[in-house]
Amino acid sequence: MVKPVENQSPHNVVIVGGGFGGLYAAKALGRAPVNVTLIDKRNFHLFQPLLYQVATGTLSPADISSPLRAVVSENENTKVIMGEVKDIDPEQRKIFLSGEELNYDTLIVATGVSHFYFGNDHWETVAPGLKTIENALEMRRRIFMAFEAAEKETDPEKRRSWLTFVIVGGGPTGVELAGAIAELAFSTLKKDFRNIDTAEAKVLLLEGMDRILPPYAPDLSEKAEKSLNKLGVTVQTKTLVTNIDNNIVTTKQGDTVEEIPARTILWAAGVKASAMGKVLAERAGAQLDRSGRVIVEADLSLAGHPNIFVIGDLANYTHQTGKPLPGVAPVAMQQGEYVANLIKQQLAGYSMLPFQYIDRGSLAVIGRNAAVADLGFVKFSGVIAWLIWVFIHIYYLIEFDNKLIVLLQWGWNYWTKKRGARLITGEESSGRIAVDANGDFYAPAKSKEAVEV
Amino acid sequence: MVKPVENQSPHNVVIVGGGFGGLYAAKALGRAPVNVTLIDKRNFHLFQPLLYQVATGTLSPADISSPLRAVVSENENTKVIMGEVKDIDPEQRKIFLSGEELNYDTLIVATGVSHFYFGNDHWETVAPGLKTIENALEMRRRIFMAFEAAEKETDPEKRRSWLTFVIVGGGPTGVELAGAIAELAFSTLKKDFRNIDTAEAKVLLLEGMDRILPPYAPDLSEKAEKSLNKLGVTVQTKTLVTNIDNNIVTTKQGDTVEEIPARTILWAAGVKASAMGKVLAERAGAQLDRSGRVIVEADLSLAGHPNIFVIGDLANYTHQTGKPLPGVAPVAMQQGEYVANLIKQQLAGYSMLPFQYIDRGSLAVIGRNAAVADLGFVKFSGVIAWLIWVFIHIYYLIEFDNKLIVLLQWGWNYWTKKRGARLITGEESSGRIAVDANGDFYAPAKSKEAVEV
Repeated sequence: MVKPVENQSPHNVVIVGGGFGGLYAAKALGRAPVNVTLIDKRNFHLFQPLLYQVATGTLSPADISSPLRAVVSENENTKVIMGEVKDIDPEQRKIFLSGEELNYDTLIVATGVSHFYFGNDHWETVAPGLKTIENALEMRRRIFMAFEAAEKETDPEKRRSWLTFVIVGGGPTGVELAGAIAELAFSTLKKDFRNIDTAEAKVLLLEGMDRILPPYAPDLSEKAEKSLNKLGVTVQTKTLVTNIDNNIVTTKQGDTVEEIPARTILWAAGVKASAMGKVLAERAGAQLDRSGRVIVEADLSLAGHPNIFVIGDLANYTHQTGKPLPGVAPVAMQQGEYVANLIKQQLAGYSMLPFQYIDRGSLAVIGRNAAVADLGFVKFSGVIAWLIWVFIHIYYLIEFDNKLIVLLQWGWNYWTKKRGARLITGEESSGRIAVDANGDFYAPAKSKEAVEV
Repeated sequence: MVKPVENQSPHNVVIVGGGFGGLYAAKALGRAPVNVTLIDKRNFHLFQPLLYQVATGTLSPADISSPLRAVVSENENTKVIMGEVKDIDPEQRKIFLSGEELNYDTLIVATGVSHFYFGNDHWETVAPGLKTIENALEMRRRIFMAFEAAEKETDPEKRRSWLTFVIVGGGPTGVELAGAIAELAFSTLKKDFRNIDTAEAKVLLLEGMDRILPPYAPDLSEKAEKSLNKLGVTVQTKTLVTNIDNNIVTTKQGDTVEEIPARTILWAAGVKASAMGKVLAERAGAQLDRSGRVIVEADLSLAGHPNIFVIGDLANYTHQTGKPLPGVAPVAMQQGEYVANLIKQQLAGYSMLPFQYIDRGSLAVIGRNAAVADLGFVKFSGVIAWLIWVFIHIYYLIEFDNKLIVLLQWGWNYWTKKRGARLITGEESSGRIAVDANGDFYAPAKSKEAVEV
């Protein structure tokens, strides 16, 4: 229970994480009689649902990012700290950053999730996931570098391997990535190369379940698969990845084991909870689920700690349907707003009903004018779903940062079929994977050397 | 002399470098009866005059870059190779990339210049220059990280050091950087911080000569300095940097030695020729000037090698005025077009007059609506110069890639005074300099660790 503090300094709300959950909580508290501190490792909020457009060269990182300070600069009660929370002390109501500690009255933890390779963490180097701007730029580098390497390769088998793109995981991210890469290969890049025909590329989408987009209605999954096929994507369901090594993906479909030579392997499959889950378990006795997500009470608080809330992807909330709510932006936004209201209500002496997620539907985009939309009472596919998708994403982007420019960029790309953001950058850093003269991946030794294909 | 090849495969023109010089040569040869091969280390042409806008958070890298393949995709005689030329053999008319060699009939070298630290190469780590996208993102990271670090710093002296920005070099790049950083500190970021007043920042522009923008007319230099002062920039001329160490810039103005504690030091001073200069000297006996630039004949060819041309920043061309032409985009563009025409003329049996640079004037932008323009017959400053500057840059950007979107982005930023691209990214790489908990620079040890301020 959030206790009103009488005749004292205002109630301190500390929010850890500037994603959809944390930012919506902060915004909803912007005019409340509390002090708000928003902490994030990065100086920007990332509009993650559009990250795949950065990875495939349509949008620039800044198009889908908003500086956190700018988003909340009008709220005079709100302070932004760029830093990482290392530990908490629920007794003392303190959190610890490196070299700094902060007191809280109410703590909201919204640090989200990262990739999960099902125990095969070494796959991360060969099959990057898509959670951060850096991830997206690395994917972009690999995708466009693959075409460059294929253009130079004279051995037909190696060339085929450069032109094979395997996307692991048939959720929305995997579907969106596969559709965008197919459009690149079969349309955008077609006239740009002289030695290769980019239309010979193979875009393979692998899904372990019996259909892609498993959380959607079965007929939408079917429509999505048909749209992907039309774009040139090969969809393979009931298929598990058992190994990734030496640029070969080993898959198992029933009893059939297949080895697919592929230079570009992108991971869109599992997620695991961020480190704050463990910290809450150790310090505040939080219960974690198998993915490390925090099991929360009906009001999103931690059992035994009514002033600690966990929201967004990091929270496992089963009180509504018996199953955990999905890790999507609308859940996080609504939870952020719910907790903000709960704090305001409780400070005013009122109480609130449990959190209720209002599902306004699911959307996944497949290509330049194809998408599937499940709004609950009605389902769409094709151009109408695509327009709904564009409208909703633009609406939320604009709400943050007036990013009207993104709409114009999209319009432009749509009409010209261009992708202006297909830069291969980042070679100057030494931590990344590059491609050597023989077309093999390696970690460049010197940070200043240009990378050869 | 370019010799027509009778009854044989078409004349092979190889262009090394996809900057303004190389790209304009390639474009001008797009319909000629020759084979064109354009080689660049990167897969994009970079519109360098706007790089400072990436460094200061207004534009994204993709806004000022055009994929080379896309720019020349309509020219069926043109092939693009992503790679780096390591060596040439003028006797055999061959160039060597790693793992590949190519024959040429005519070679155009346009590989440009990089930073020069006047023999103090170790300054590069503490005072990055501005030649590549990676440079610009590193500058952007440092500039915005400095404000974040200042916000956290409690020691007033250290805080002052975080809020001191020193720009070394008063040419167009230095002037543009200083103006943009002043606008950030004194306008854009003003409301975003709670512990610091960003208006306390000090932006210092250092120039060794007796005035900034030394190649311009003296009264324009004066006007530029006044505009900078109005924006809050401190301009210090006749000032040499004698040392950079431990976040302290040591300067010498006449006999006065000063030590300026500054966390952000940006280099906009010297340039040196790219490695191809040396290769041409060793293999083809090219004469180099003190900066390593190649001294060329009146038709931009190499003495004794009438089929090898050097254009753009890498060329030292004195035949017009006795002094080398400046290293600016218009010179490179005109030289690229001249050599392309010369090749076409000579193949048709004609000859050409020496290269003549047509100077259409100089421009430097200072702030949101201030610039100086010297068009030769008339000089402008203030809003009109700024509008000329905007118009010319947009015109050339659009010519390449229809980047109308950049105009809209500018318009948007202009009206809102926002800078949407102020992301601090790149922490995941291990080669960069980061800031630790004590505010000291360090190279992060592990590539996956988030960076703390």
